[in-house]
Amino acid sequence: MHKVDLSIGKDLFEENEKIARRNNDILNEKKIFSVDFMGSIGSGKTLLIEKIVERLAGKRKVGVIVGDVTGDDDYQRIKKHGVQVVNINTGKECHLDAHLIDHAIEELDLDGIDTLFVENIGNLVCPADFMLGCDKRGVVISVTEGDDMVRKHPLIFQISDFVVLNKIDLAEYMEVDMDKILEDLNRISPKKVFLTDAKHDKGIDEFIQWLIWKRE
Amino acid sequence: MHKVDLSIGKDLFEENEKIARRNNDILNEKKIFSVDFMGSIGSGKTLLIEKIVERLAGKRKVGVIVGDVTGDDDYQRIKKHGVQVVNINTGKECHLDAHLIDHAIEELDLDGIDTLFVENIGNLVCPADFMLGCDKRGVVISVTEGDDMVRKHPLIFQISDFVVLNKIDLAEYMEVDMDKILEDLNRISPKKVFLTDAKHDKGIDEFIQWLIWKRE
Repeated sequence: MHKVDLSIGKDLFEENEKIARRNNDILNEKKIFSVDFMGSIGSGKTLLIEKIVERLAGKRKVGVIVGDVTGDDDYQRIKKHGVQVVNINTGKECHLDAHLIDHAIEELDLDGIDTLFVENIGNLVCPADFMLGCDKRGVVISVTEGDDMVRKHPLIFQISDFVVLNKIDLAEYMEVDMDKILEDLNRISPKKVFLTDAKHDKGIDEFIQWLIWKRE
Repeated sequence: MHKVDLSIGKDLFEENEKIARRNNDILNEKKIFSVDFMGSIGSGKTLLIEKIVERLAGKRKVGVIVGDVTGDDDYQRIKKHGVQVVNINTGKECHLDAHLIDHAIEELDLDGIDTLFVENIGNLVCPADFMLGCDKRGVVISVTEGDDMVRKHPLIFQISDFVVLNKIDLAEYMEVDMDKILEDLNRISPKKVFLTDAKHDKGIDEFIQWLIWKRE
């Protein structure tokens, strides 16, 4: 059973990577900078994207692709900010893939955006294997997930360009050792790490400075 | 791509179900009551199992199978309680399956236990599709995952026998509307729901009363 699984997996990954590269070509041609936000349920991906969208209003033309297993909760939240949004429901799939992004891109008016954020399905395992074709990939984690969550899921951190450690205001209350999380991150994947409390607008500007403005 | 995926999925699911039924037969023959605990990262599955194991000490002979992508953090936590534990590392897989449980059962001294708890991989999507062969399946969710998490992942709640809503002490602080979660649960899957704050030992006894003692 496992052998069959693996050989098919290989073909799927190769096919996915091919489409991901094509997605990236299409976006680059239109000079659109794109970011894939991964992370578990409740890590705060949607709110973080909302806060970024708010701050980029009038400065960048943002589009967002929102992935969820079902429903349009996150889509409705982003839509309120007056930017282009496409909702992807994966049904039973635990991650977005390049093929789904290919279709979502077709629904966007690419001439009307210069920055594309993708909110992946809430999951720290599956999205790691599927490149979407974005320029950057990052993980949003929350201190509420416990201080062992990084070393339990090393792959997604290794393939990411940045990590946002969110809800830092809850660390003390929940007796979560942030140093332990940061040590694990430094050992497993010494990438750029941002500390945020998106709800209370802390750390957002520093993150945007690095993600958006320092690129220009 | 999606078509290939689906047809292979069907075979995998059928094969899994066959092994799951066999696992259940083996456990029933030994008069072992078994429970599959599913739920997202940081929902509190391990602590809940620890609290149950503590309370059953001297009353039931408990064994635990712990699933994680990598590492033995949860295994070590359970081991301290002096019960039989088997650790399963799935590598890259986002769920346990019946085949992995089949192997884990072989490692347990089944004559030395009468109650088996399985802690599934932290994920609200993938484990739903893979029966393990346990008598009961349940989901542990945390208020920190947000009040839209149930309607975003209906399947896992539909296939479960019970739901534990954990970390209820954080609801007010995090401004999470528990009524919204309970309404969604009642609409999507009107199962037995237990409210717990495992860290502060709240609601555990009521849950054990239903899960273990009312069965005897």
